[in-house]
Amino acid sequence: MSGSSAPAATKLWGGRFAEATAEIMQRFNESLSYDKTLAQEDIRGSQAYARALVGCKILTESERDQIVKGLDEVGKEWAANTFKIDPADEDIHTANERRLKELIGPIAGKLHTGRSRNDQVATDVRLWMMNQARDIEELLIVLIRVVVSRARSEIDHLMPGYTHLQRAQPIRWSHFLLSHAAYLHGDLERLRALRPRISVLPLGSGPLAGNPFAGLDRHAIAKDLGFETVGTNSMHSVSDRDFIIEFLMWASLFTVHLSKLSEDLIIYSSSEFGFVQLSDAFSTGSSIMPQKKNPDSLELLRGKSGRVFGQMSGFMMTLKGIPSTYNKDLQEDKEPLFDAVDTVKACLQIAAGTISTLSIFPEKMRAALTPDMLATDLADYLVRKGIPFRETHHISGSAVRLSESRNIPLSALTLEDLRTLNPAFEEDVSKVWDLEESVERRNAVGGTSRRAVLEQCERIEAELGNVGKTAAL
Amino acid sequence: MSGSSAPAATKLWGGRFAEATAEIMQRFNESLSYDKTLAQEDIRGSQAYARALVGCKILTESERDQIVKGLDEVGKEWAANTFKIDPADEDIHTANERRLKELIGPIAGKLHTGRSRNDQVATDVRLWMMNQARDIEELLIVLIRVVVSRARSEIDHLMPGYTHLQRAQPIRWSHFLLSHAAYLHGDLERLRALRPRISVLPLGSGPLAGNPFAGLDRHAIAKDLGFETVGTNSMHSVSDRDFIIEFLMWASLFTVHLSKLSEDLIIYSSSEFGFVQLSDAFSTGSSIMPQKKNPDSLELLRGKSGRVFGQMSGFMMTLKGIPSTYNKDLQEDKEPLFDAVDTVKACLQIAAGTISTLSIFPEKMRAALTPDMLATDLADYLVRKGIPFRETHHISGSAVRLSESRNIPLSALTLEDLRTLNPAFEEDVSKVWDLEESVERRNAVGGTSRRAVLEQCERIEAELGNVGKTAAL
Amino acid sequence: MSGSSAPAATKLWGGRFAEATAEIMQRFNESLSYDKTLAQEDIRGSQAYARALVGCKILTESERDQIVKGLDEVGKEWAANTFKIDPADEDIHTANERRLKELIGPIAGKLHTGRSRNDQVATDVRLWMMNQARDIEELLIVLIRVVVSRARSEIDHLMPGYTHLQRAQPIRWSHFLLSHAAYLHGDLERLRALRPRISVLPLGSGPLAGNPFAGLDRHAIAKDLGFETVGTNSMHSVSDRDFIIEFLMWASLFTVHLSKLSEDLIIYSSSEFGFVQLSDAFSTGSSIMPQKKNPDSLELLRGKSGRVFGQMSGFMMTLKGIPSTYNKDLQEDKEPLFDAVDTVKACLQIAAGTISTLSIFPEKMRAALTPDMLATDLADYLVRKGIPFRETHHISGSAVRLSESRNIPLSALTLEDLRTLNPAFEEDVSKVWDLEESVERRNAVGGTSRRAVLEQCERIEAELGNVGKTAAL
Amino acid sequence: MSGSSAPAATKLWGGRFAEATAEIMQRFNESLSYDKTLAQEDIRGSQAYARALVGCKILTESERDQIVKGLDEVGKEWAANTFKIDPADEDIHTANERRLKELIGPIAGKLHTGRSRNDQVATDVRLWMMNQARDIEELLIVLIRVVVSRARSEIDHLMPGYTHLQRAQPIRWSHFLLSHAAYLHGDLERLRALRPRISVLPLGSGPLAGNPFAGLDRHAIAKDLGFETVGTNSMHSVSDRDFIIEFLMWASLFTVHLSKLSEDLIIYSSSEFGFVQLSDAFSTGSSIMPQKKNPDSLELLRGKSGRVFGQMSGFMMTLKGIPSTYNKDLQEDKEPLFDAVDTVKACLQIAAGTISTLSIFPEKMRAALTPDMLATDLADYLVRKGIPFRETHHISGSAVRLSESRNIPLSALTLEDLRTLNPAFEEDVSKVWDLEESVERRNAVGGTSRRAVLEQCERIEAELGNVGKTAAL
Repeated sequence: MSGSSAPAATKLWGGRFAEATAEIMQRFNESLSYDKTLAQEDIRGSQAYARALVGCKILTESERDQIVKGLDEVGKEWAANTFKIDPADEDIHTANERRLKELIGPIAGKLHTGRSRNDQVATDVRLWMMNQARDIEELLIVLIRVVVSRARSEIDHLMPGYTHLQRAQPIRWSHFLLSHAAYLHGDLERLRALRPRISVLPLGSGPLAGNPFAGLDRHAIAKDLGFETVGTNSMHSVSDRDFIIEFLMWASLFTVHLSKLSEDLIIYSSSEFGFVQLSDAFSTGSSIMPQKKNPDSLELLRGKSGRVFGQMSGFMMTLKGIPSTYNKDLQEDKEPLFDAVDTVKACLQIAAGTISTLSIFPEKMRAALTPDMLATDLADYLVRKGIPFRETHHISGSAVRLSESRNIPLSALTLEDLRTLNPAFEEDVSKVWDLEESVERRNAVGGTSRRAVLEQCERIEAELGNVGKTAAL
Repeated sequence: MSGSSAPAATKLWGGRFAEATAEIMQRFNESLSYDKTLAQEDIRGSQAYARALVGCKILTESERDQIVKGLDEVGKEWAANTFKIDPADEDIHTANERRLKELIGPIAGKLHTGRSRNDQVATDVRLWMMNQARDIEELLIVLIRVVVSRARSEIDHLMPGYTHLQRAQPIRWSHFLLSHAAYLHGDLERLRALRPRISVLPLGSGPLAGNPFAGLDRHAIAKDLGFETVGTNSMHSVSDRDFIIEFLMWASLFTVHLSKLSEDLIIYSSSEFGFVQLSDAFSTGSSIMPQKKNPDSLELLRGKSGRVFGQMSGFMMTLKGIPSTYNKDLQEDKEPLFDAVDTVKACLQIAAGTISTLSIFPEKMRAALTPDMLATDLADYLVRKGIPFRETHHISGSAVRLSESRNIPLSALTLEDLRTLNPAFEEDVSKVWDLEESVERRNAVGGTSRRAVLEQCERIEAELGNVGKTAAL
Repeated sequence: MSGSSAPAATKLWGGRFAEATAEIMQRFNESLSYDKTLAQEDIRGSQAYARALVGCKILTESERDQIVKGLDEVGKEWAANTFKIDPADEDIHTANERRLKELIGPIAGKLHTGRSRNDQVATDVRLWMMNQARDIEELLIVLIRVVVSRARSEIDHLMPGYTHLQRAQPIRWSHFLLSHAAYLHGDLERLRALRPRISVLPLGSGPLAGNPFAGLDRHAIAKDLGFETVGTNSMHSVSDRDFIIEFLMWASLFTVHLSKLSEDLIIYSSSEFGFVQLSDAFSTGSSIMPQKKNPDSLELLRGKSGRVFGQMSGFMMTLKGIPSTYNKDLQEDKEPLFDAVDTVKACLQIAAGTISTLSIFPEKMRAALTPDMLATDLADYLVRKGIPFRETHHISGSAVRLSESRNIPLSALTLEDLRTLNPAFEEDVSKVWDLEESVERRNAVGGTSRRAVLEQCERIEAELGNVGKTAAL
Repeated sequence: MSGSSAPAATKLWGGRFAEATAEIMQRFNESLSYDKTLAQEDIRGSQAYARALVGCKILTESERDQIVKGLDEVGKEWAANTFKIDPADEDIHTANERRLKELIGPIAGKLHTGRSRNDQVATDVRLWMMNQARDIEELLIVLIRVVVSRARSEIDHLMPGYTHLQRAQPIRWSHFLLSHAAYLHGDLERLRALRPRISVLPLGSGPLAGNPFAGLDRHAIAKDLGFETVGTNSMHSVSDRDFIIEFLMWASLFTVHLSKLSEDLIIYSSSEFGFVQLSDAFSTGSSIMPQKKNPDSLELLRGKSGRVFGQMSGFMMTLKGIPSTYNKDLQEDKEPLFDAVDTVKACLQIAAGTISTLSIFPEKMRAALTPDMLATDLADYLVRKGIPFRETHHISGSAVRLSESRNIPLSALTLEDLRTLNPAFEEDVSKVWDLEESVERRNAVGGTSRRAVLEQCERIEAELGNVGKTAAL
C-alpha cells in the first residue's frame, strides 16, 4: 500500500512564497538559540550520567574520565563564549555531544546509552530551575528587608488608609508598607514550597519506559546532582512540566503583588496625592513636556505582571492540549520559563531600588487626614458608653451630615451639637479627634499601633533567615 | 463648591432603555444570590466574634448567649431551607444580622462592633474553603486509589507506550495508569500545601486598620474557629485573596491532568485503537446515529479544564487591576471560586466512576505491539556487545529500513540479514523479540518491570493516609 | 474478544464516596438547566425545519401544520413558565420534542429526520446570538449618546490631562469624555462586524456529513430564519464556535474599555482629585465607617472585565484542546456565552446610569491646572520665534527648574527671568499662561479646541443611526 | 516641604545584591533592542511629519529636504546593518533622531516640534502592522489554496468522518480538508476586517492634547503614509492599542484552527489510524528509538497556539490594569506583537509545507469504513418508506445490536433478519451498504457529495483574489 502526496499542491506551496523547506522547518524546529541557556546544566547532567554508566558496565572508569574531562572542556568553551555552534546542531544536547565527539572521539557515542533527549532535557531544566529559585529567593528576601526596614525607620508618619480609594481611617505609613510586605512574605513561603517538586530526578527514564541497563543507580545520580528525590514513573518523568507551570503561576501571582504595590505608589506620586516621589534614577522625563517626571519604574513593574501572566496562561494552554508522555509541543516550555525568570529577577531589583530610594512627604500625608475619617472612632466612643454599634453608627452618620450641612469639619461640632444627636456625648469626646490615639487604639494583632506594627516587622523578619542581614547594618 | 450633573444626559439614559435605577443597580450590587453558600460559615464566624466581644467588655455573657442562641436559630432556618430572604438583604452578612435582630431584638446591633464586612466576609470564605479543601482531598485520594488499584490488578497486560502519539516502546498497562497517578499524586501534595495559607484568621482587622477595642484576643478567635494562624497585617487581611487564586491555580492544573488522562482514554477508545471502552453509565448515544457510543464523560472532563482555567484567569485579571485594601471588585471572587469547587468535586467523582467501570481489551493492546517497537532493544543488544550506542542506533535503524524494504516485520530478519549490518549479532539476538523481557529489563526505579511497577504503587499508597482504605477491601 | 473492568476498583469507587452513578453522571451531562435559555430559538428552528421537510416529502403539509402548531403550544408554555421539565429531559432539544410528542402524538417523531442535535444546537445558539447582538448594539449606542451628550453640554470646563497619572497638559473635560467615546465607538464598529459570521445557517448539516434527503432547500431555511448565508461545509458547521469566541473576545475588549473609564473616574472621585462624585443611586456606604461613600458601580464595572476575560480564555482553552467536528467538550460553550451576554448588558446599563448621573466639580478641575502644565506651550512659544524645538524644550525645562528653586509658579517668572534663559522672550510671552488659549491652540483634527471637540461629537454621532436619538431631545 | 528617603533601606539595597542603579533601570526601561524592528517605519513617519511641518511654517522647504534626505541616509544604515547603536539610545525614536542630528546638524532638532513619542510610536507600529497584515494575508491565501487544491485533486477518496473521535458517517477526504479550509476562510475574512482599525493615523496628537501648530494638515499626513483615516481624539490616539489586541485575538483564534487541524492529522498519522504520513522534511526521528518518525511540524503548530494565546492574554492583562492615555505599561505591547507576527508567519509556511507534502493512504481510509457507519442510512431507508425517524432510529439500533450479538457486520444481516425487526424492509435495502451512494446522497449545500464538495471549493476560491493563483497552475 503506498501513500500519495498531491503534486499540484506541492508545486503551489513550492512556489514563490516558500523558502527552502529544510530551512524554514529547521528554524521552526531548532531550540539551540534559547536552550543554550542550559549549556552548563546539560554538561553537569551528562557528567553524572557518565559516572552512573560505570555502574552498569557501559563505561569503563577510563572512558568515564575521558567523557567527564571532555565535557569540562565543552563547558569552558561555553563559559568563555568560544563554543562554535554548527548549523546542524538542533539543540543544546546534540551540540554538546557533537563537540564532545570532536574532542574525545567515538567514545562520546557511548554517553547517550539508555538515555533519551526526553529525560535529558527534563533533567537540565530542573537543575537550572533549582539554581534560579535560589537566586530569586535571595532577591525576594532583599526586597522584603527593604520594605520592612523602611517600615521600622518611618514608623512615626501617619497617613490616610484607603478603601475603595476613598479615605477610610488613619494608619501608619509603616502599616501601609507592611501590608505589601505581607503579600511578599506569602510569595516567599510559596516559593520555598516549590522546591520539593522541582528537585525530582528524571534522568534514567529513557524516552518513556525507563532505563534497561541493570545496575543503573538513579538514587546515586540524584545525589550526585543534588536532587532530593527520584521520579516515580518514567512516562510521567519525561513529560511532567508541572514544576514549570507552578513556577509560572507563582511568578504571575508575585508580579500581581508588585503591580498592586506599584499602583498604590503611582497614585500616591500624583500631584493630587503627593505622598511620595520617585528618585531620578527610577523615573524619566518627557520628550515634549519639560515639567514632567514620570514614575516609569513603577509603571513598568505594573505592566510586567501582564507579561508573566501571559507566559503562564500560554504554556497552560499548550500543556492542556496534549496527550501524555513526550510530545514536541513541550518544546514551548523553555521560552516562557526563561523569560519569566528574567523578568522576575529584574522586577525584584527594580522594586527594591525604587522603594529604597523613594522620597516621602509626611506633611502631605498628615494634611490628608481629615476629621471625618474619625467617624468610626466617634461611633466607637458611644459604643464604650454602652450603646449598640448599629445605633452609634447611625448617630455618627448624622454628625457627619450635620458638619457637611454647616460646611465645617466634623471635629468642629461642639459638644452641644453632638448632644442634640445623643445625650451620651460628654467632654471626653474631644479626645476622639486625636489621630495618634486613634491609630494607637488599633493595638490588636495586625493593627496599626506602634507596638502592633513593630510586631509585624519581627514576625516577617523571623522568616527571612540570614540573607541580606548583614548588608542592612 | 457644588457639583453638577448633566440633565440632558440623565434624561436620555432615563428613557425607554433604562429600568428603574435602583433596581438594576441593586441587582448589579447584590451578592446574596450566591454568597448564601456561606450562610453557616457566616454564623459560626459571628458566634466566635460574639464570644470574643465579651473579652473586651462590649458584650456581657448574657448578651453573648442570646446572640449565639439567636444565630443558632438563624442557622437552623438556612439548614431547613426556611430562611426568608428580604428584598433589602444585600448580602449574607446583612441578611443574617437582620434576621438575628428580628429574633433577639436590638442587642443584635452590638455584634458588628469593631467588625467590618471586609474582615467578616474574608473569614467566612476561608472557613468555607477549609472544609471544601478537606472534601476535595478525600475525593482525590479515592480517585488515586481507583487508579492504583487497577494498576495492581491488571499488571499482566502489555501495551504500546506512545510518544508523539507514535508507538515507541512496550510498557505495562499499569505503568500507563501509574503515569497518571503520579500527576494526581502531585496534585495531592500541592493541595495539602495550600492549607497554611487558607487557615489564617482575618477577623479582628476591621475595615482595614485593625480592631480598636482593648482585650480582643484574636488568637482565641482563631482557635475557636479552627484557624492555624492570625493575619499579620489588617490592611492585608481584609483584601488578601491569594488563597483563592492559589486554589484556582491548583484546580486549573489538576483539571489539566484530568484532561490529559481523558485525551489518552478518548484516543484509546476509538475503533482504531480499541484498547478501552467506557461503561454505559458514562457514555451516551447519538440522536441520529444508532451505532454510536460516545465517551461523553471523558470529553466533559476534558472540557471542564477550560472552564476552571477561565475562572482562574478571570479572577487573576480582576485582582491585577486594583490597588491595595478592599475594593468592590473583590466581590468577583466568590462566583469563580464556588463554580471551580463544584466543578472539581464533580470531576473527581466522574473520573473515579469512569475509570473504575472502564473495560479494557488486552488482546487489542497486545496486537498493537509491533516488533519495530523493539528497535531500541536491538540497539541495546549491541551495546551490551560493547559497541557505542550512537553506532548501534544507526545499525538498528538500518535493520528497520531493511525490514521495511522487504515488507516484513523487524523480528523476521534472519541472523544472516542482521550480520550483514554488523558481525556482532549472534544467536541470542532472538531473545530481543520477547516483549515481556523487554518490559522486565526496565527495572530501574520508575521503570516498567513488574517489580518497578509494584514499587510505584507502594510509593503512592504510602502518601494516601487512611482515606478510602477499608472501602477497597 | 471481551473487555474486562476491574471489580476491586469498581467496588472502591462504589463505596461511601460515590453517589449513584446514574445520578452524578446525569447531572454532569445535562444541559437543560441552562440551555432552556434557548427554548424559543429551538422552537423557531424546528418550525422552519418542519416547513423545509415538506420540500423533501418527509412531511405532508398537514403534518407540518400539526408540528408547527404543536411547537407554538410548547413555546407558549415556556413563555408562560408552565412548561413542566421531566427528569429524563437531557437538554432543551429533547425536552421540546418530548413535549411535542405528548401534544401531537407520533408525528412528532418525524421532525428529527436528517437532523442531529449537532446542527440543531448550533442553529439555536446563532439565532439567539443574533438577537442579543442587536440588543447590545442598542444599549451601546445609548451609552455612547450619554457620553457624547455630556461632552456637548459641558464643553466649557477645563481640566488637567494626565499621562503616567502626572499632570501633563490642559484639556477640556469634554475631550476626556470623548476619548472614552472613541473607544466605545470602536466597540460599536467591531460589534457590527461580528454579524456576518453569526448569521450563518448550520441546519441541514446533520451530525457532520450533511443532509441526505433530496429537495432540502437550505437557502429557504436560512431565509425563513433570517440568516444571511448558509454554512459552507457540514463538518465545519456542526462544530464551528468561532462566532462565540469572537463575541467573547469582543466583550473582553469592551469591558476592558469600561474598566479603563471606571479607573479614571474612581481616581477622579477620590478626595484628593475631587473632580467627580457618583450619585447616591450608584454608590454605597460602609457598614462601619459612617463618612464613606464608595464608587461601587465603577468598581464593579472594573471587576467585571476580569469575569468576561475569564469566560473568553476558558472557552478558548476548551476549544483549543479538541479535534475537529462535534465533541462533547463543546457543551461548555453556553454558560460562558450566556454569562458574558448578561454581564455586558448589565454593564452597559450601569455605565450609562453612572455617567449620566455623575456630578462634576469644575472648580476643582480648574484649580488643578498649574502653570507648569504650560511648559510645552512655553517651548512652543520659542519655536514660533524660530528656535528648534529640541533647544526650546531645554530652555523651558530650565525655566521650570528656576521656578521650582524659587518656589514660585512657572507663570510668576518675570520677563527678565526668562530673558536670562533666552533673549527671544518678549512681552507677548504672558499670553502663554492663558489656559483657554492653550486649549484652543490644539485645533487640529482630534484636538482639544472647542471646534475640534464639537467635530468629534459629530463624527461619532454620525455613526450611531437613529437608536436613542429622540429620547435625547 | 521636603521629602525624605530611607538611608538604611537604600544602603541595604545598595549592597552586594544590586548592580549599579543606572544600569539595571536602563535595561529595564530601554526598548531599542526590540523596537528597532520599527526602524524604517519610524523614518517614514518622520519624513511625512517633516513634510507636514512645512505647512505650519515650522520648517522651510529646504530644511524639510535636508531632514528627509538625512533620514533616507539613516534608513540606509539600518538596511545595510551599519547603524551604530549608542549606549544612550533609549528607543528607536531617540536613536534615529540622534543619528539624524549627527548627519545634518541642529536642524534635526526641529523635527520633534509638536510631536511626542506617544503619537510617534503609535504611528510607527500601525505602519508596520499594515505591512505585516498584508504579508500574512498572502501567506494565508496560499495555505488555503494548498488545502483546496488537494481537496479538488483527491476528491475520489472516502474515509470515516468522526464525531467524539468515534466513527460516525462516511465522508470524502476532500470534505474533511474543506472543513478546515472553512475555518481558514473565516480567518481570512476576519483578518481583512482588521484593516480599518489599524489604518488610523495617530500622528498629530502630541503627547495627549493634540497639535498646537496652525496649519498642520493631518489628513495630508494620513494620505502621505497610506492611512485611511485620522484618529478621532488625541487622548485616545496616543494610547489606543486595540488594533494590537485585535490582531493578537485574531492570531489566537487562527492558531487554534491550526492546532485543531494538526490534532486531526497527528491522530490520522498514528499507526492505528494510518491515514496520512508526513514527509521527511516535516518530521524527525528519535535520538534513541531508530524506528520512530514523529510528526514534529504538526506538534509544533499545535503548541504554538498556546504561545500566541499567551501573548494575547498577557497584553490584555497589561492593558486592563491602566488608566487612560499613555502609561509606560504600554511599552509591553511590542514584544508580544512582534513575537505573534513572527509565529503566525512561520506557522503559515509550515502548515502549507506540511499539508502539501503529506502522503495519504486511501486504502487505509477505505478499510476503516465499517458497515455500522451506515446505521443512519438504514434508518433513513425506512424513513423513505414512511416510518417516522424516531421509530426507524430505534429499528436501526436493534439491527446494530443484532449484528453485534452475532458478531457479523451490520451489512451481513439478511433481508429476513431485518424483516424480523420491521416488515417494511425490502430487497432494495442492499443499496444502503454502498458507501459511495451514501456519500452522494448528502448533496445539499455543504454536504459531502462530489457536487457539493466542488461547490465548496469554488465558494472559497472566489474569496481569495489573485494571490497565488498562477503559482497553482
